[in-house]
Amino acid sequence: MPIYTYPDHDISFAMNELLEFNKHYDNNYNHIGMSTELVESILIEMQRLAHNLIAPLDSSGDREGCQIKNNVVHTPSGFKQAYKQFSDAGWIGLSHPVKYGGQGLPPSLGMLVYFLMTAANHSWSLYIALANGAITTLGAFGSEIQKKQFIEPIIQGRFAATMCLTESQAGSDLGLITTTAVKKQDGNYLITGSKLFITGGDHDLSENIIHLVLARIEGAPKGSKGISLFIVPKYKVNDQNEITEGNSVFCGGIEKKLGIHGSSTCQMFFDNAEGYLLGEENSGLNAMFTFMNESRISTAAQGLGHLEVSFQKSYEYALERHQMRGSIRKTPEHAADPIIVHPDIRRMLLTQKTLLEGSRALYLYTLKMLDISQGESNEVILKDARIKLSVLTPLIKGFICEVSLESANYAIQIKGGHGYIVESEVEKIYRDARITTLYEGTTGIQALDLLQRKVLASDGKKLFPIIDEVKNFCQNKDGAVQIKEQKQLLEDALHTFSLVTEKLVKGKKNQDESGAAAVDYMMMFGYILTGYFLTKSSMIASELSESDDKNTDYLSSKVLLADYYLKCVLPRVDSLASIINSGSKPVMKLQDDLFFLTSVS
Amino acid sequence: MPIYTYPDHDISFAMNELLEFNKHYDNNYNHIGMSTELVESILIEMQRLAHNLIAPLDSSGDREGCQIKNNVVHTPSGFKQAYKQFSDAGWIGLSHPVKYGGQGLPPSLGMLVYFLMTAANHSWSLYIALANGAITTLGAFGSEIQKKQFIEPIIQGRFAATMCLTESQAGSDLGLITTTAVKKQDGNYLITGSKLFITGGDHDLSENIIHLVLARIEGAPKGSKGISLFIVPKYKVNDQNEITEGNSVFCGGIEKKLGIHGSSTCQMFFDNAEGYLLGEENSGLNAMFTFMNESRISTAAQGLGHLEVSFQKSYEYALERHQMRGSIRKTPEHAADPIIVHPDIRRMLLTQKTLLEGSRALYLYTLKMLDISQGESNEVILKDARIKLSVLTPLIKGFICEVSLESANYAIQIKGGHGYIVESEVEKIYRDARITTLYEGTTGIQALDLLQRKVLASDGKKLFPIIDEVKNFCQNKDGAVQIKEQKQLLEDALHTFSLVTEKLVKGKKNQDESGAAAVDYMMMFGYILTGYFLTKSSMIASELSESDDKNTDYLSSKVLLADYYLKCVLPRVDSLASIINSGSKPVMKLQDDLFFLTSVS
Repeated sequence: MPIYTYPDHDISFAMNELLEFNKHYDNNYNHIGMSTELVESILIEMQRLAHNLIAPLDSSGDREGCQIKNNVVHTPSGFKQAYKQFSDAGWIGLSHPVKYGGQGLPPSLGMLVYFLMTAANHSWSLYIALANGAITTLGAFGSEIQKKQFIEPIIQGRFAATMCLTESQAGSDLGLITTTAVKKQDGNYLITGSKLFITGGDHDLSENIIHLVLARIEGAPKGSKGISLFIVPKYKVNDQNEITEGNSVFCGGIEKKLGIHGSSTCQMFFDNAEGYLLGEENSGLNAMFTFMNESRISTAAQGLGHLEVSFQKSYEYALERHQMRGSIRKTPEHAADPIIVHPDIRRMLLTQKTLLEGSRALYLYTLKMLDISQGESNEVILKDARIKLSVLTPLIKGFICEVSLESANYAIQIKGGHGYIVESEVEKIYRDARITTLYEGTTGIQALDLLQRKVLASDGKKLFPIIDEVKNFCQNKDGAVQIKEQKQLLEDALHTFSLVTEKLVKGKKNQDESGAAAVDYMMMFGYILTGYFLTKSSMIASELSESDDKNTDYLSSKVLLADYYLKCVLPRVDSLASIINSGSKPVMKLQDDLFFLTSVS
Repeated sequence: MPIYTYPDHDISFAMNELLEFNKHYDNNYNHIGMSTELVESILIEMQRLAHNLIAPLDSSGDREGCQIKNNVVHTPSGFKQAYKQFSDAGWIGLSHPVKYGGQGLPPSLGMLVYFLMTAANHSWSLYIALANGAITTLGAFGSEIQKKQFIEPIIQGRFAATMCLTESQAGSDLGLITTTAVKKQDGNYLITGSKLFITGGDHDLSENIIHLVLARIEGAPKGSKGISLFIVPKYKVNDQNEITEGNSVFCGGIEKKLGIHGSSTCQMFFDNAEGYLLGEENSGLNAMFTFMNESRISTAAQGLGHLEVSFQKSYEYALERHQMRGSIRKTPEHAADPIIVHPDIRRMLLTQKTLLEGSRALYLYTLKMLDISQGESNEVILKDARIKLSVLTPLIKGFICEVSLESANYAIQIKGGHGYIVESEVEKIYRDARITTLYEGTTGIQALDLLQRKVLASDGKKLFPIIDEVKNFCQNKDGAVQIKEQKQLLEDALHTFSLVTEKLVKGKKNQDESGAAAVDYMMMFGYILTGYFLTKSSMIASELSESDDKNTDYLSSKVLLADYYLKCVLPRVDSLASIINSGSKPVMKLQDDLFFLTSVS
């Protein structure tokens, strides 16, 4: 089983030393009883559940997959019991309103707990991610009746949820949606259409499933301005949240996929199904963005989970597998040394490790902004956090998921031929991780959101809060020589990034320029922020080590990790800058029909 | 079915315009009747077989896989008939000696034909690759009796072959092999041991299977100097090449793998099985290198096949899938434009296409060196070709297979969510391609061979023949302005590479320096040679277009492809150089036990 080990030292260092979550919780959530101890006990309890309940279902769920028997979608053995145990213990409601049965803890904690469960079992965790997203969306746009009727049972685990966006002709381009909604005399709607790739579209985990469905009301404007959002339950529900009768919602089949076999990905058909308008007419995409933003953060957590497990499995193997001698005999008692002595293995491990540490910090930093953006009274701080969150949401989804593929790839490579075998369990990580750059908006879509809608639309201004933070950090040259040198490397990369940004802002009228640059730009930004958190960790560790003799080894490792990253990963930024600076012409010039010519038919 | 379309224009351009295979065949193989027409008719016939016979078994073979029933390994439906039809038509013997039933055509043609079949069906083609490798190895090291006894029936398709190297404790490190060989009174040996990951270890394609097995003769020196190579048939054979009785060779099971499901990967047990020494005692690794070198070239062909199919599937989809508008409305009659209008999609397609074209040229160039290194009478030309071949063999295996993973990844990415679904067939490419950087020596092993054993051991001298060729090409600044500019970009990258090489040669005593640099160095070299072939194609196309009005479009595409590559792919070289130049310290310094610390157990 790919059970990962809870990285308690690293999470504690990142949360408390690097990002000061202890202060954050003390200052902002003291009134609801938040404390460092409470957070720790929640994380430990969740970790226990993840380890004992959820992770053991990961490999078996992959092998078994979801199956349709007698028109019922069955999830893999154990999934249903785990879902019940998890929801009965109140975990779904952790960071949702007390009013509807939740526990009202900060959203960061909900997302942190989500990370722990998705690292244990990506497929299983998807059902929870959908419940969370639906609760948040219903909470933001639902009427009081809708909230009472649907949020409570989702928190209880009685109802599950989905987001129904994609249709066969409408993927990245939701403006092409054709599912229709016809208003009935009672004010409700009849929904008709078919939806593709619906995660958790049908399953046996809950009594009922609440679909949030994008559709067009008759006569609505064309394109994305004519889309509304509807609540369409699998079974209709009365005022006491009890199921009354079936609705015309059908699962037309489950997809066979590369990975996440434990997640039921369904084709869904709505045939004059009863639906209830959620939010305003024709503002469905806007409402759905609440769901999508939450899903983007969950997907980043999935990428982070794969980074964790990929690194840990690789490290474990690199210590136990003996092949050839290193430059110094490490284990003369064996016929060969453990492969961790070999520079090429270390190179892969250190890349995995630094991308993991940087991504983890980036994820946690985003969660802090998520808290502040929802609960801060100081307008200046609130505004700063909201801008950061809007920039970081596509970034963490795009960047963390992309680097998780790199790490999953190394997890196979480090194991050599053994990595290709199902038994090794890393091939499963490689398959599961692959979905993260596709769903909830591909990497390309995230990158366009970041560059065009956030950076360029604000003439770069939305970047300032976070870039200034990095710049200020670099410019403070107090401290040890090594840290100064590290800051210099980071500052150089930041300078390169700023020049690229300026150039793109100047040329922003040509959308092909930003379109060609978007993904490389997003990766650059991700590498720089990763570098920032690693360098800051290095600085903090270096300072702490002056007064802390017990953790010298651990603290020194932070300095060396930053060193590796700044010298052996961050230079990627230079190539990306060159490529972006060559502009869109080399990308756009070749005629579409000249990419491939053959006279063979 | 992922049937790829034969890229006739591109192969013809690469072979005849770029690499002058027509002259090569005319000059060197005229005596055996080689001509451009013969080559074309062979390729067309092979392409027909690949398309009609072999490719249709690709997806079905993946779904069905290999199975053991009643102790017999069954390959997927159709594999056996195809193997028979293929060998009956004489294809296995294409470039093998006439004396043993082959057709005696140049090795390049055999490898070109191999490329066509592996692009059609990677799994199926592996059985043929093994037959080829065994024939070559038996031809080089076998006694006349051994050759007669085993080569003929392999060419006829009656016997198949394997290479048995890996043991559970001995993968990259073959010095750790423990399989034993005990000499009998009749001069033959009894082989005992177990082998892992044996491709084609057992199956139902042929009457008999000839295993080439690495083992230690009693009392042999430790490590790699005490290994000998043995012929161990599944069934013993008499002088008339007829099967007489079983040998103690058993298949212990077939591995469940990420991909290449149609290839039976077996655990093999030898229990006092009768074996015949092939070549000299204790020189087994050397003999096996003949097999491995051939397998490295075949594996490069597999990577190239995945590059072809990945690009073609992506391009097809990018033309037919409509989502969102481009900067210019391409298809106003549709609600959206084909996704090929979007810069980010083009970026991925062009990267796929240029890596494919460059890799194809690199592969073909290597095949030309393979021919010359075997059949050239002029000592100077012979020596030059042999040096080039020795450098290019690990390079094409390492580089082409690595970039094939990148391209397979894009093939999924371009299809978005659809790419994750089994039906889309690109997820299969992603799984199948993944083996190529693992078997026949991992990417890391290829890189060490290239950098340490070839480049550094010769103080860089073995690089000169090929580097000089690129340098001379760049320095000739005749011709169009655009081509001059392209040459300049290539020359700059070559200069960077030369500086890195010099530095590594100077520091060669520290094996960690080269160990840390090896993979990045190999990739740099690959990018530069890819750039060389693309730029040279661009120059030739530019010259040809002055006199050829019919193919203007096709020829201009070569110029634009080089342009894209030099500006948007080749800059990767700069980052790789920076990373190499940071040396091995950042890689080696972190203590092994400090990569991950946790108090959770």
